Amino acid sequence: MSYSGPSKMTVDEANSFLSAAFYRPDHQAKVTVMEPGRAVQRLEVREEHLRPGGYVSGPTQMGLADSAAYMAVMTLTGMEPMTVTSNLNINFLRPCIGDVVLADATVMKIGQALAVMDVDIRIEGADKAASQAIVTYALPREDQRARAT
Amino acid sequence: MSYSGPSKMTVDEANSFLSAAFYRPDHQAKVTVMEPGRAVQRLEVREEHLRPGGYVSGPTQMGLADSAAYMAVMTLTGMEPMTVTSNLNINFLRPCIGDVVLADATVMKIGQALAVMDVDIRIEGADKAASQAIVTYALPREDQRARAT
Amino acid sequence: MSYSGPSKMTVDEANSFLSAAFYRPDHQAKVTVMEPGRAVQRLEVREEHLRPGGYVSGPTQMGLADSAAYMAVMTLTGMEPMTVTSNLNINFLRPCIGDVVLADATVMKIGQALAVMDVDIRIEGADKAASQAIVTYALPREDQRARAT
Amino acid sequence: MSYSGPSKMTVDEANSFLSAAFYRPDHQAKVTVMEPGRAVQRLEVREEHLRPGGYVSGPTQMGLADSAAYMAVMTLTGMEPMTVTSNLNINFLRPCIGDVVLADATVMKIGQALAVMDVDIRIEGADKAASQAIVTYALPREDQRARAT
Repeated sequence: MSYSGPSKMTVDEANSFLSAAFYRPDHQAKVTVMEPGRAVQRLEVREEHLRPGGYVSGPTQMGLADSAAYMAVMTLTGMEPMTVTSNLNINFLRPCIGDVVLADATVMKIGQALAVMDVDIRIEGADKAASQAIVTYALPREDQRARAT
Repeated sequence: MSYSGPSKMTVDEANSFLSAAFYRPDHQAKVTVMEPGRAVQRLEVREEHLRPGGYVSGPTQMGLADSAAYMAVMTLTGMEPMTVTSNLNINFLRPCIGDVVLADATVMKIGQALAVMDVDIRIEGADKAASQAIVTYALPREDQRARAT
Repeated sequence: MSYSGPSKMTVDEANSFLSAAFYRPDHQAKVTVMEPGRAVQRLEVREEHLRPGGYVSGPTQMGLADSAAYMAVMTLTGMEPMTVTSNLNINFLRPCIGDVVLADATVMKIGQALAVMDVDIRIEGADKAASQAIVTYALPREDQRARAT
Repeated sequence: MSYSGPSKMTVDEANSFLSAAFYRPDHQAKVTVMEPGRAVQRLEVREEHLRPGGYVSGPTQMGLADSAAYMAVMTLTGMEPMTVTSNLNINFLRPCIGDVVLADATVMKIGQALAVMDVDIRIEGADKAASQAIVTYALPREDQRARAT
């Protein structure tokens, strides 16, 4: 699928939003791509992201998938803080070991009520995904949507 | 389903394992129940667990579901660090707002290769779940399993 | 969760609906329970429902889960033909071998846009489930809903 | 991901297997592509595949996803009747209306115990998918595997 027109949120706006919204923003993955229907986040791995054995933990990968999917929606809707995760399904395919993790989210469908994203998570430069997630966000109804000033 | 015999890991052993294994263990959910085929974890909510609006964030709930499911497997297998998450599917049902979150994981099936858990996540005392997860763990093959001393 | 008031569709209405709507209705599972927030369907197994080895096939179990979940929604909404499946997640837990299969669907959440059901599928009389499904239906918007005469 | 070497099952072998194994084989989707790590099935839509409104039904799409994923595994393993579905997750993205449906399954991971496939389902010639499924198959253990004669 392809979407026309520019992204409704820029990379800088996306990073500002994440920094303002979440705890310890310096530990967050940075948004590196915002184009219509697609967003990429890049995480520099720290000790807190690991599980025993030195693997990037499942919850770290799930958090990345959730966040990158959220940013991908916002490329099409602009800022919509009332948009919330409704379902997340993740398959862990192989060990995730490395210094940088990329989450690349693509919008598969956006309707009136739901947006569904496919997210590929892999170590930067790897030729195989560490995990793959499908994330569904519930969109606010028309009358609940944020209004641009 | 019911399982006979005692849990192969106690509540104290489960908490020691989590403390030793993960970053910032004081911020982890504590295990409060370990009985055959079931484990419960209890999280005291802190600022870092919240998303904008004061809700317990999706990643916090996913991490809890993953961990409680892991502990539930260990009630039946004992310590098996080679056991890894293979799939997690979570449905967010309603806002999760409160001071304490409980994740209650039940083993639905344990076979040679896989264990599948149903996890109910809710605010302590709430009569409805905030989210519900199905978590699948891949079990190590016989020849890779930890040996009790 | 419990729901107050009577079911908005009876068992007879549910079976009439299924007979009118689908191909070869005599081969369909019959609805046996319609109570607020819960529906049960009962399938008498035929050759066409089997896969090699004499197991009730995956697609048969998925179709049952989908249908029982649909009926469970209708206990709360009444007839709403615009209600459509949005997501289905099923875990096959153990072989499904026997003459009669039951699918027991419970509404976990019903909101403005989505209803989420938990479905237990097992051979009649068995003490363990053959499979477990979570099924999400998208509800029509207010202005698209069927109007009772 | 790419896989080297030829497919371990041909298109003809795949269709023979499906015809021998399932009820009413003339109503089945035909396999049209078997290449290493990928299989495609093609269904000519009949009345029995429809739900009210003339849409290809959810269970029809789920059955196709399951079958195409199975064939994709067999491109890498050869005939393995002990391989069984362990999990299927499907998102219905948009109405599926047309005369021919294609299910295109790609192997994302194959390990010792599990194979995970991504399946795209769409009307032949459509530029957007009607649904997308992730299907996990459990592989038989080494000592349970079929032996080629």
